[in-house]
Amino acid sequence: MALNLVIMAAGKGTRMKSALPKVLHKVAGRSLLAHVLGTTAGLDAQARIVITGHGADEVERAVAAPGISFVRQLPQLGTGHAIQQVVPALQGEGTTLILNGDVPLIKAETANRLVQACAGERLALLTIVLADPAGYGRIVRAGDTTEGSADGAVQAIVEHKDATPEQRQIREGYTGMMAAPTGALKRWVAQLNNNNAQGEYYLTDIVAMAVAEGVPVVGIAAPNETEVLGVNSPLQLADLERRHQREQAEALMEQAGVRLADPARFDLRGSLSCGQDVEIDVNCVFEGQVSLGDGVRIGANCVIRNASIAAGARIHEFTHIDGESAGVKIGAGALIGPFARLRPGAELGDEVHIGNFVEVKNSTLAKGAKANHLAYLGDATVGERVNYGAGSITANYDGANKHRTVIGADVHVGSNCVLVAPVSIGAGATIGGGSTITKDVGEGELSVARGKQVAISGWQRPAKKR
Amino acid sequence: MALNLVIMAAGKGTRMKSALPKVLHKVAGRSLLAHVLGTTAGLDAQARIVITGHGADEVERAVAAPGISFVRQLPQLGTGHAIQQVVPALQGEGTTLILNGDVPLIKAETANRLVQACAGERLALLTIVLADPAGYGRIVRAGDTTEGSADGAVQAIVEHKDATPEQRQIREGYTGMMAAPTGALKRWVAQLNNNNAQGEYYLTDIVAMAVAEGVPVVGIAAPNETEVLGVNSPLQLADLERRHQREQAEALMEQAGVRLADPARFDLRGSLSCGQDVEIDVNCVFEGQVSLGDGVRIGANCVIRNASIAAGARIHEFTHIDGESAGVKIGAGALIGPFARLRPGAELGDEVHIGNFVEVKNSTLAKGAKANHLAYLGDATVGERVNYGAGSITANYDGANKHRTVIGADVHVGSNCVLVAPVSIGAGATIGGGSTITKDVGEGELSVARGKQVAISGWQRPAKKR
Amino acid sequence: MALNLVIMAAGKGTRMKSALPKVLHKVAGRSLLAHVLGTTAGLDAQARIVITGHGADEVERAVAAPGISFVRQLPQLGTGHAIQQVVPALQGEGTTLILNGDVPLIKAETANRLVQACAGERLALLTIVLADPAGYGRIVRAGDTTEGSADGAVQAIVEHKDATPEQRQIREGYTGMMAAPTGALKRWVAQLNNNNAQGEYYLTDIVAMAVAEGVPVVGIAAPNETEVLGVNSPLQLADLERRHQREQAEALMEQAGVRLADPARFDLRGSLSCGQDVEIDVNCVFEGQVSLGDGVRIGANCVIRNASIAAGARIHEFTHIDGESAGVKIGAGALIGPFARLRPGAELGDEVHIGNFVEVKNSTLAKGAKANHLAYLGDATVGERVNYGAGSITANYDGANKHRTVIGADVHVGSNCVLVAPVSIGAGATIGGGSTITKDVGEGELSVARGKQVAISGWQRPAKKR
Repeated sequence: MALNLVIMAAGKGTRMKSALPKVLHKVAGRSLLAHVLGTTAGLDAQARIVITGHGADEVERAVAAPGISFVRQLPQLGTGHAIQQVVPALQGEGTTLILNGDVPLIKAETANRLVQACAGERLALLTIVLADPAGYGRIVRAGDTTEGSADGAVQAIVEHKDATPEQRQIREGYTGMMAAPTGALKRWVAQLNNNNAQGEYYLTDIVAMAVAEGVPVVGIAAPNETEVLGVNSPLQLADLERRHQREQAEALMEQAGVRLADPARFDLRGSLSCGQDVEIDVNCVFEGQVSLGDGVRIGANCVIRNASIAAGARIHEFTHIDGESAGVKIGAGALIGPFARLRPGAELGDEVHIGNFVEVKNSTLAKGAKANHLAYLGDATVGERVNYGAGSITANYDGANKHRTVIGADVHVGSNCVLVAPVSIGAGATIGGGSTITKDVGEGELSVARGKQVAISGWQRPAKKR
Repeated sequence: MALNLVIMAAGKGTRMKSALPKVLHKVAGRSLLAHVLGTTAGLDAQARIVITGHGADEVERAVAAPGISFVRQLPQLGTGHAIQQVVPALQGEGTTLILNGDVPLIKAETANRLVQACAGERLALLTIVLADPAGYGRIVRAGDTTEGSADGAVQAIVEHKDATPEQRQIREGYTGMMAAPTGALKRWVAQLNNNNAQGEYYLTDIVAMAVAEGVPVVGIAAPNETEVLGVNSPLQLADLERRHQREQAEALMEQAGVRLADPARFDLRGSLSCGQDVEIDVNCVFEGQVSLGDGVRIGANCVIRNASIAAGARIHEFTHIDGESAGVKIGAGALIGPFARLRPGAELGDEVHIGNFVEVKNSTLAKGAKANHLAYLGDATVGERVNYGAGSITANYDGANKHRTVIGADVHVGSNCVLVAPVSIGAGATIGGGSTITKDVGEGELSVARGKQVAISGWQRPAKKR
Repeated sequence: MALNLVIMAAGKGTRMKSALPKVLHKVAGRSLLAHVLGTTAGLDAQARIVITGHGADEVERAVAAPGISFVRQLPQLGTGHAIQQVVPALQGEGTTLILNGDVPLIKAETANRLVQACAGERLALLTIVLADPAGYGRIVRAGDTTEGSADGAVQAIVEHKDATPEQRQIREGYTGMMAAPTGALKRWVAQLNNNNAQGEYYLTDIVAMAVAEGVPVVGIAAPNETEVLGVNSPLQLADLERRHQREQAEALMEQAGVRLADPARFDLRGSLSCGQDVEIDVNCVFEGQVSLGDGVRIGANCVIRNASIAAGARIHEFTHIDGESAGVKIGAGALIGPFARLRPGAELGDEVHIGNFVEVKNSTLAKGAKANHLAYLGDATVGERVNYGAGSITANYDGANKHRTVIGADVHVGSNCVLVAPVSIGAGATIGGGSTITKDVGEGELSVARGKQVAISGWQRPAKKR
């Protein structure tokens, strides 16, 4: 049966106090609206329509994709008015699912249950049963109304402020999301009026129309409040962020057996795939696409973006890995950090060691290579077992262009060297400490470029000026 | 009407297990006593009197300021005894407000309500209504006593241990803070005795005197427990710290629209002013005076003290900024970190880039200058668009005095250079990698100071000793 | 009276989704089983028997120690079957205490109470009283059963699924731990059968046998749930970790007066001894044996393992100290960090300063020595008041062996120097910036080893290629 997906995303979000349209604010690094679009991507909808308004250009640019269309609601005169704008775009006689672009954490299963409950014939309302549903419109059902049981047919939604004391005892509230028979929806929204204090067209008024027409109205209770919470302020945004992070943490623990030292100090903004026996210490942040092989251990306070880390690698504390679009690859058994920084295009072979205050960018290190202290490797190709000395730098930038440094296997680069690229160091060569290398070095050669040590006796160190 | 402010700060705080007097322990970087003094600074008091005792010298030194006077209570024989000491210093016939130096988070509005309720005529007690007020003295009011309503006149304070089972049902407790008519207070405290198990003079005994004299006793309920919680142990101190941090985090979110990734991992010890659309990632600490312009983004795990950061600047993870008294200024659109350290007197122009493992102290960098890798800039003046190479150092200290390095616009400093101050590099000059520069360099010149590269074939690398 | 200690540690822990046997998973850096062994180390037991099964080799290797013996349960046919295996190893007629290797946080006092309650004569069951004991077998006592009072004699344990609605109201549950008269225990477990749905031998069936024989059955209620929680999944492991960390944090605060900025962001995996007035900022991790002297302050985000830090030292933010087996020692009043890394064998005298991006390994620094910026000190002996310049490196590794650098008192090492070990710098000597020192330097000498500065006018910097 034909399905239309409608996502309401026209609101301004004044309480966000932001120049950004509300639905573009982010949870777990992804906009609220993108969450809803992602969650519903698996629904077999013939039309996916986003209703935009405030910041429409920016919102549409942000989520434009094949199969997604936009309808503008200008000005915003209420939820019913929003759906009136979308009527011409609704296709077929099936079901229209109406979600909110600022309610990001609804699950696909819940959306699907709503669609199934409607089945093109019933008006299905997404509800939530809470100990204290203050503020929610109450779901008045046939039969016992106090228990919030999802059994009786829905007879009305009564706004909190209009509810009688008895109705306020109802624990089931309306979430603002529904699935409606498309044909009936079109007919109903055409009959809405704005004869109310706000002068707005309320979509909830169609419930009375459905009841009057004898169309069954069913309430589908969401499994938990997190799925139906909307975002209206930075505080609510932060609350949803933490709920979502907790859910992600629990899923990783329960489904992948990941051992998190503190689920409350774990942030994932993207996807994280983990092998067996992965351990993640406190206060780590993962972004983009990250994969961790079997037995990988991540120390406290690491930030890791767009990286692939092979089995048994150990990432010590305070390591910053950011592969951006090029990615970072770390081989099996590698030891990284603490205080290491790996940048885009760092590809480290098995058992590579990168130590403290070392930066690696756009460089390949073969198996067993080591750069353990205060060093920079940029645009370099480093052979197996190379020992790259403390304080040594690949001078890859001449002020205008970047050049490559090639270091053969088993090379030993001393401390505080400068390798001025383009330059090549043959396998087995040794570079004396403190050398600035501007010419290629042959295999097995020792190259030194430094001044002669001169001793000056009787020299007086400067005295402290006052 | 004349107002006297009295703050009781004589207690030892044995359970703190500290050499520091209790009221000098800190919440959000500020002593408990300083919080109370700061909160009440806006009250129009003719006298501000701090009662000191344990560690009196240290306490008085810590908060000495114009308009604040001290009265010593030695030895400490109870709250009533404390007020007896202060009687000679109380001025006029108006109101005396008595607060506790170890109850730091009372709000000015609450203190003011207490003063207004007294109005020089009534004894106004600050109370708190709790689900479980165990340990608090109960407020016995005329009429229904169980509901803790703030309506009936107060008839007595009954200590928890002396309370009848019925009185223990009272949910309203006394907080230890009050405002009293000054003249009556003097009369009452003169009548206190210490005929009790502790042999102490209790200020609360004046409630019975007021009732006996027909002076109205009113209870003013504090809006929440946080305002009336005292500190007696490190655990209570930590609890108040988190409550206060949570309040500060919520205020920043709601009032300034700041987006905090995790309000539970945010610490502010001072003041933070934020423009629109500021984002602060997890686990950041702010101290002193910090201002963040529109759109500033602070990455995870940053520590920022006494700094001003202009619009659009991006502070990456693990950045440490400490302006101390000199301050740090960061220009619009600057990119800082990760692993950058900015120290006092660092003044960075617009679009300056400071990268990983770079330290900047007492240096000015003009627009667009970059120091991206493992470098030190101290006592330097750096021109626009300068590229300061990886591993390069300004040798600003000759073992006795500090000297200045001046680098003109568009200079390119190679890797692992040493600029031995005082030294000046002319605009557009280039310093070859690995050079130690001891003499000034002219505009547009290339300067190199390095040894000649020598190749030694057939050299044998040392063998591993066993 | 003779005591046998039996710890059941044969389970696989399928829900852990780990290759590691369940009891080897860690809380606070120590395996679950090691916690139980440590807690019971003070019991005067004549036999300490661990029942192993899944991963028996690995488990036995992990906790092998004098006085601990192992009995294997292969296959695992239930708790009763486990005890059947251990019967031949039980000694004497006293008490057998049965604990679980996956219930790590039981306290010694509770174990002791259980042993005392048994006294070789009674069957003593460890119970827990909870608001909601769903899932626990209920303790049915003589007399009033609903209140969970620990008074009446225990009559039966009823499994949750077999319990009547009335029995489900019982708030006292069985924890799986008990102490039994050894002789009776042997007799009872011999009579167990596996006529149940799972086909397992249940140890709890002995309760009915005891009742039938008239042996008194007593229930000893654990003081809190944390002591009796078992680990079956990574989520439960993380929950116990946080409970344990909270307990440790509170103990440090209350017993040692340590001031923790946030007890929820504190991790201790080992032992931490603290003097008076120690302050620890947010998000620090301590491992191994760490001691902090009076007045030590630890900044935010530090990681400290196996280190001894003397009075008044200040460890700034982002400092990483790892003494491994050699330890790290830091003298009184030292200033370390931010972004410092101290490795095994770092021994810093009083008032030593180690600054940002500085690594120290296996080196001794005498009083007042300073290495403040971007430096490496490895295998070095550094005299008093030495100033070790920014970017300077001890080249301690020749590619095969490590050598020592000796720097006398009052030496000033310039910036970006390399000291090629083995090398010795005499007291009071000065090393010019950018020098590579390969030969010993005499006392008071100035040594310089650098190229002559050459200026090349009219040089054209490379142009950007397109």
